[in-house]
Amino acid sequence: MSSTRDIDALIDLMARLPGLGPRSARRAVLHLIRKRALLLGPLARQMQLVADTARECLNCGNIGTADVCDICSSAKRATGELCVVEDVADLWAMERSGVFKGRYHVLGGTLSALDAVGPEELRIPKLMDRVESEAVTEVILALNATVDGQTTAHYIADQLESRVRVTSLAQGVPIGGELDYLDDGTISAALRARKEV
Amino acid sequence: MSSTRDIDALIDLMARLPGLGPRSARRAVLHLIRKRALLLGPLARQMQLVADTARECLNCGNIGTADVCDICSSAKRATGELCVVEDVADLWAMERSGVFKGRYHVLGGTLSALDAVGPEELRIPKLMDRVESEAVTEVILALNATVDGQTTAHYIADQLESRVRVTSLAQGVPIGGELDYLDDGTISAALRARKEV
Repeated sequence: MSSTRDIDALIDLMARLPGLGPRSARRAVLHLIRKRALLLGPLARQMQLVADTARECLNCGNIGTADVCDICSSAKRATGELCVVEDVADLWAMERSGVFKGRYHVLGGTLSALDAVGPEELRIPKLMDRVESEAVTEVILALNATVDGQTTAHYIADQLESRVRVTSLAQGVPIGGELDYLDDGTISAALRARKEV
Repeated sequence: MSSTRDIDALIDLMARLPGLGPRSARRAVLHLIRKRALLLGPLARQMQLVADTARECLNCGNIGTADVCDICSSAKRATGELCVVEDVADLWAMERSGVFKGRYHVLGGTLSALDAVGPEELRIPKLMDRVESEAVTEVILALNATVDGQTTAHYIADQLESRVRVTSLAQGVPIGGELDYLDDGTISAALRARKEV
């Protein structure tokens, strides 16, 4: 390779990002070097800043730059509603929709007999604590519609249903979705959950 | 957004990389934060190092970490063959093939009447100098098979043909290529350049 060792090392590190392979990492690094004043320098500094400050919220598991994240520390978000998600990406997706005004709880995965993931491996005991300590009135299960996600939802609902209202996201046809392109499971879920117009 | 301002700023910077959009930038940043000790920290440091040291070779235009790149400063590569490419990505592609043992000259683009790119905007005067000063015996034009690339190749060949041997890469069917999937231009080029078996 003609690029020197330092540039090769950068390409190798970039290729470990999800969505980038060796080829697109090379392209990205070349682009970065061409814009080194405007992009590579600022990106390096921002990465170092985030590397030094990013951490998991001790309360909900969200990622932020303080021990307790912005959402957990905002009094406005203490609505009594607690939305349970599998991971931080799901929390961010919920936030982007801008509809949910309460707080979150990030499990950090799903229960899985196969991978020996029990409640203790997830943030489930902490969830139970929060339901007591934060005057939670409703737990909204926003887990993925996968087998493991739904198993986890059932487990949590079992544990909580005597203590608090437990709901889950509706399943059905996505907005803009065409029936022809939907899987059978979604169609039958949407049919079972049909409602009066 | 629940992620704090620093993390958002990092996502915005990452989204400016070629091949990453806002969605994949978010995914990449989340991955980086999860692996902050093993990946985000080292990546930040390596980026800073490259931002501080990367520069264009004064001789050939390749990107390296010294004023004159490894290839230009290696006596082994002084074979008298000079391969002319459009940009650094093409040079890297040639180097990966490992077949060419000479030196390179990166033009930094192609001539373009439409975009008002003349020989002075490219590294063409420097190419003329090098042909004299480096005892070049053959100039190999490895320009892209586009209209602008071929126009540039003709221009350079015109300037040089009285002074040095000028060749260009063969055009034809790619190795592993299926005729059915090739464009008409490639098929007719391959047919015109047919050879005895």
